[in-house]
Amino acid sequence: MTSLKIIDKLGQLGLQLPAASTPGGNYVSVNLRGDIAYVAIQFPILDGQYLFQGKLGTEISTEEGYKAMQLCALNVISQIHHKIGFEKIEGLNHIDAYYQPAEGWDESPKVVDGASDLFVNILGDKGKHSRAIIGTPCLVRNFSVGLVSTFTVI
Amino acid sequence: MTSLKIIDKLGQLGLQLPAASTPGGNYVSVNLRGDIAYVAIQFPILDGQYLFQGKLGTEISTEEGYKAMQLCALNVISQIHHKIGFEKIEGLNHIDAYYQPAEGWDESPKVVDGASDLFVNILGDKGKHSRAIIGTPCLVRNFSVGLVSTFTVI
Amino acid sequence: MTSLKIIDKLGQLGLQLPAASTPGGNYVSVNLRGDIAYVAIQFPILDGQYLFQGKLGTEISTEEGYKAMQLCALNVISQIHHKIGFEKIEGLNHIDAYYQPAEGWDESPKVVDGASDLFVNILGDKGKHSRAIIGTPCLVRNFSVGLVSTFTVI
Repeated sequence: MTSLKIIDKLGQLGLQLPAASTPGGNYVSVNLRGDIAYVAIQFPILDGQYLFQGKLGTEISTEEGYKAMQLCALNVISQIHHKIGFEKIEGLNHIDAYYQPAEGWDESPKVVDGASDLFVNILGDKGKHSRAIIGTPCLVRNFSVGLVSTFTVI
Repeated sequence: MTSLKIIDKLGQLGLQLPAASTPGGNYVSVNLRGDIAYVAIQFPILDGQYLFQGKLGTEISTEEGYKAMQLCALNVISQIHHKIGFEKIEGLNHIDAYYQPAEGWDESPKVVDGASDLFVNILGDKGKHSRAIIGTPCLVRNFSVGLVSTFTVI
Repeated sequence: MTSLKIIDKLGQLGLQLPAASTPGGNYVSVNLRGDIAYVAIQFPILDGQYLFQGKLGTEISTEEGYKAMQLCALNVISQIHHKIGFEKIEGLNHIDAYYQPAEGWDESPKVVDGASDLFVNILGDKGKHSRAIIGTPCLVRNFSVGLVSTFTVI
């Protein structure tokens, strides 16, 4: 799977790769150790602009949450594209998806499919992954969602 | 360690393997990449029935929480048994255990030993693991606990 | 990088390795499987004494939080030093940093740099890592912060 192919597939879905964000602290966005690429938590940031801030169920709807998670996944793909290159990727391992819920809101699997669908649609077999979804009282900058991921490298 | 031996050991403790649950979204329950099997978060589900829903300390007692975590671990074992087979497992790596606490409740290590005890008792050296316990405001379907795990494959 | 060198560098920063804490349950503090060392969640404990308990933003200031995270990282280094030895470490992979926030407090990256700075300053290239920061309603014993980490082994 070449990066050109990925950008082409994104285009067919009407999507573009966002700019890879820079770390907001003393860490790296992608750390390659052994045969695993560890990706720092990615948020719904579009080319530097913070989007989808607030709680799911009140400030952010389930449909918006799906798009927020999709944007997190686009940022993961952008990081891997710029720091590693998909030519060297065997596949996505697992995602930990975090979300800020309003009291009683319980649509998290639909929201996290925003990331899962994108990985599977764009990366095919390389996008297959296990996942966990965990509520949190707060993410930095009041982001509604955040996504942690690792990839196996060839 | 054969699967037969594991089922035998479970029987001696009066336990059975639950049916492996199917994913509630666009992901897989076990993802094998490189030499690691990544297991999706498992909940206290017994053959399709949702159990132990609510907050620990009010709706769910510490003793019930222990059984809830044990059931999460049984589901992990069921997933590995059905998707990989214990013949190919070198051992459990680490568990991340999540729980929904009532205000001020602080018995989480006792509850998570429900999973840790099972892994060590059933898998022996292969069940040795490190762990983290983290409170969460909510898990999907109001489950009191959830368990994320990875295994190293031979 | 020898352990002697690490203790020397810590001394130059006016820091000492705390005693490696023992597990508070049926797990191990460091689990080596394949080429990865999985470290159990570490808390701001100094030689058995529980420090920095409470919520960040009210009971614990951002400056204290930085020191609390630094102490978590010192405990990680102590665990690796005693259980594996840094001669066998290729490098730190990723950290998951958890914190108990007061309503509206949003200085978590500054706090987690307490761990990130220490790893980079003490371990050099071996301390390079990706990270995730996640709010939690509670950690055991009301600790303000907790730190989960993995290392790749040579």
